[in-house]
Amino acid sequence: MYRVDLNCDLGESFGKYKIGSDEEVIRYISSANIACGFHASDPVVMNNTVSLAKQYNVSVGAHPGFADLVGFGRRKIEISNKEAKAIIQYQIGALKAFCRAHRIKMRHVKPHGALYNMAAKDLKLALAICEGIYEVDPNLILLALSGSKMIDAANSIGLKAASEVFADRAYNDDGSLVARNIAGSVITDEETAIRRVIRMVKESKVETINGVDIAISADSICVHGDGVKALEFVKKITRAFKEEEIQIASL
Amino acid sequence: MYRVDLNCDLGESFGKYKIGSDEEVIRYISSANIACGFHASDPVVMNNTVSLAKQYNVSVGAHPGFADLVGFGRRKIEISNKEAKAIIQYQIGALKAFCRAHRIKMRHVKPHGALYNMAAKDLKLALAICEGIYEVDPNLILLALSGSKMIDAANSIGLKAASEVFADRAYNDDGSLVARNIAGSVITDEETAIRRVIRMVKESKVETINGVDIAISADSICVHGDGVKALEFVKKITRAFKEEEIQIASL
Amino acid sequence: MYRVDLNCDLGESFGKYKIGSDEEVIRYISSANIACGFHASDPVVMNNTVSLAKQYNVSVGAHPGFADLVGFGRRKIEISNKEAKAIIQYQIGALKAFCRAHRIKMRHVKPHGALYNMAAKDLKLALAICEGIYEVDPNLILLALSGSKMIDAANSIGLKAASEVFADRAYNDDGSLVARNIAGSVITDEETAIRRVIRMVKESKVETINGVDIAISADSICVHGDGVKALEFVKKITRAFKEEEIQIASL
Amino acid sequence: MYRVDLNCDLGESFGKYKIGSDEEVIRYISSANIACGFHASDPVVMNNTVSLAKQYNVSVGAHPGFADLVGFGRRKIEISNKEAKAIIQYQIGALKAFCRAHRIKMRHVKPHGALYNMAAKDLKLALAICEGIYEVDPNLILLALSGSKMIDAANSIGLKAASEVFADRAYNDDGSLVARNIAGSVITDEETAIRRVIRMVKESKVETINGVDIAISADSICVHGDGVKALEFVKKITRAFKEEEIQIASL
Repeated sequence: MYRVDLNCDLGESFGKYKIGSDEEVIRYISSANIACGFHASDPVVMNNTVSLAKQYNVSVGAHPGFADLVGFGRRKIEISNKEAKAIIQYQIGALKAFCRAHRIKMRHVKPHGALYNMAAKDLKLALAICEGIYEVDPNLILLALSGSKMIDAANSIGLKAASEVFADRAYNDDGSLVARNIAGSVITDEETAIRRVIRMVKESKVETINGVDIAISADSICVHGDGVKALEFVKKITRAFKEEEIQIASL
Repeated sequence: MYRVDLNCDLGESFGKYKIGSDEEVIRYISSANIACGFHASDPVVMNNTVSLAKQYNVSVGAHPGFADLVGFGRRKIEISNKEAKAIIQYQIGALKAFCRAHRIKMRHVKPHGALYNMAAKDLKLALAICEGIYEVDPNLILLALSGSKMIDAANSIGLKAASEVFADRAYNDDGSLVARNIAGSVITDEETAIRRVIRMVKESKVETINGVDIAISADSICVHGDGVKALEFVKKITRAFKEEEIQIASL
Repeated sequence: MYRVDLNCDLGESFGKYKIGSDEEVIRYISSANIACGFHASDPVVMNNTVSLAKQYNVSVGAHPGFADLVGFGRRKIEISNKEAKAIIQYQIGALKAFCRAHRIKMRHVKPHGALYNMAAKDLKLALAICEGIYEVDPNLILLALSGSKMIDAANSIGLKAASEVFADRAYNDDGSLVARNIAGSVITDEETAIRRVIRMVKESKVETINGVDIAISADSICVHGDGVKALEFVKKITRAFKEEEIQIASL
Repeated sequence: MYRVDLNCDLGESFGKYKIGSDEEVIRYISSANIACGFHASDPVVMNNTVSLAKQYNVSVGAHPGFADLVGFGRRKIEISNKEAKAIIQYQIGALKAFCRAHRIKMRHVKPHGALYNMAAKDLKLALAICEGIYEVDPNLILLALSGSKMIDAANSIGLKAASEVFADRAYNDDGSLVARNIAGSVITDEETAIRRVIRMVKESKVETINGVDIAISADSICVHGDGVKALEFVKKITRAFKEEEIQIASL
């Protein structure tokens, strides 16, 4: 029997502003990456989201990002490694408080948006983030891009790491994601996407944009819950996994 | 031998903006109330301040306030009890992460500014805050105005509480502080202030603005570290305590 | 022929967060109150909203509020009159820049949320706001609650003022709105609401919650554009006004 | 008789946080670049700073930056040209409101920190900023790095531009500033710095770090007012200019 984690970013609403269909998508996933009030969310939303995750028995992780609400944490910001470590620790701690209040454990940390992308390619930044996580709680698992510097950094300091793959993205021969502005970077055909992800889970292989087979670690698959189409795709994946005897289970 | 805690608000700088003489005043106090990024401070400042407190072996507490940097948390903001509880938990958690990273324990929580003042008079708000603290860590000690609803709320739910007094403020007959806009509300003569605080510690009594003696609990004395004069006063208090055989010790 | 203005709050989205059906409701109104980046909106949203208003030939006004994005400007914040004046001027100026860039005139200013409600009852705060508006541009029109201190303040300093009424709210005998927590405060029957507002426009009268007729000024009617039901009501009002020969025209 | 403008960044305090010696340095300069609430300042500080500039008859300009208070606008942030234009217009408008309230004219705009540095090298970003300024007020003067893309962009769209030079910085052969991390980038000897700046004003020439003389436009000199040493240097420059018959006058 194969196993894989299904993770989704949750709790990205803010004040009166609502985003996502958290109550829907949470029924299908095994891990929730919960925003921590920097790129999205606020303390009340965080509390409600941790409560929701507990109710559905979904594993909880912190989803820390840049302090950039207007840019939703998606804009690159020049940051020192010291600052990066500090904002990671701050946000992990903040979410941990709600986990403690709800008597559940925080299991993982997945950096968000531009911070995730920058650290995937920058080993020093990745190390600062991993050290930040490890110092707060050495039992936490880093969830990051398969084959990235983040995974390398975690391994080098003894932080547990889980490799994340994307069903709907094309890969380069070196295992990195094909940039979105390149033709063919996004897999639009859902059947193809599902077939690819099943192969990643079962064979640890993926065909790159150049038609080459490469090795890939797939501990967790990132899915999206905003919008009807995204939600339908999550349901399709879970059905396909049942047929293929792939068990969805948290890290 | 008498004992009392000397507490001071620390870590209120923000980015390039510096406030306070943390490195000076920390030599004289036993407890540091560390700002948590809402009314003041940022993750880097928090990390540095926890590190400083550890270096001087000063007890660390969270100093959560309203998310109102421009008002320094001193402006009353209409807040639901649910929101109050959530912002308290968020901020405690954030500071706790730095305590864990530096391998020290967080000992107490002292709400800041307008939140402190509002909760001192509003039992429901005080209860929300106390429950928020207790849920995150039942070993934390609330540090709040002696004789206030905050102390009542803590007692009613089994949260440890320590009563704070002010050396330089006049008291009403009911034990509340005389409002700052009333003549005589601030004790400007330093010798008088010190004599009063020694009596609060040794006899648990204070003379009110009306000349009446009332009972008062004095577990901790609030001192300030911003400015030369404030710092001189802290030194005078510590000298006077030595002569009076009052030991300065954390809660 | 009777005339009345129909005003609606627009441009309250923020970054990735979307609120309201601006593109729909703008077809029916004569004045847009555009958020200025404090309680809602950001510079890009402001630019887009001014552009939209110009396209539909709708009169533009500033909708300044408290700097409280997480509370959407609906929470009371203790504010000095000096601060209130400064935040009003700042926000008016910011929106005015986009009006200049799009070669249209800003016509009015309607304070938002808690600031609107606080100033309706506090003459000194109302004066600070009115002076703030007048100093920036003496041709601006204050749009505020009919019969409120805001209207008094504007009149006392020579600032033009327009009185706003609500179709769906009950009135007290003194002309103030019945507080939302009181039974009957909201008029849920749409036909009744429309009949009431037509009478306010044509007869300058409204029946209070106690069944008494009082005089009321109705220069402008506040409508909402968020949600299908709100939008339907706006359409109904515009149809009823056509039948009643009430012309919808900006201030 | 030679003329040159002396400009300084002012009004960078925020809430309770104070920075700079505005009341001192304003006596020596001819132009004030006033922060607009994004990288520093708040509406009350802006109002006070415009009032101060009026009192000393100093020319007022906007000093817009990134919305990054914790980074003081000094960190590069990925920004679209549309966003850049919008944040420039927003901030210019906000400051303009205080100029109108105090019955003075805003004369110039000098972008701040990372935005200034990024636009100096990026023509498209520079054009977005210049168009933003021009649309709000075609009489405004851009104040930017001598020889930069900012000056090119302004010239290309008909926006007035003034070239800024630095007394204490070394120049490369192409007229750009030597990066701060390179030895010799900062001129520490005050006499040398003053001699260099006098030559820039009188001869429009400067010796580069490689010992080559290059042409340079010096409409305005940037000085600093934070700290005793900075203030002393401003005084020395003004004395030297008097002796050299260089008149200090706004743009």
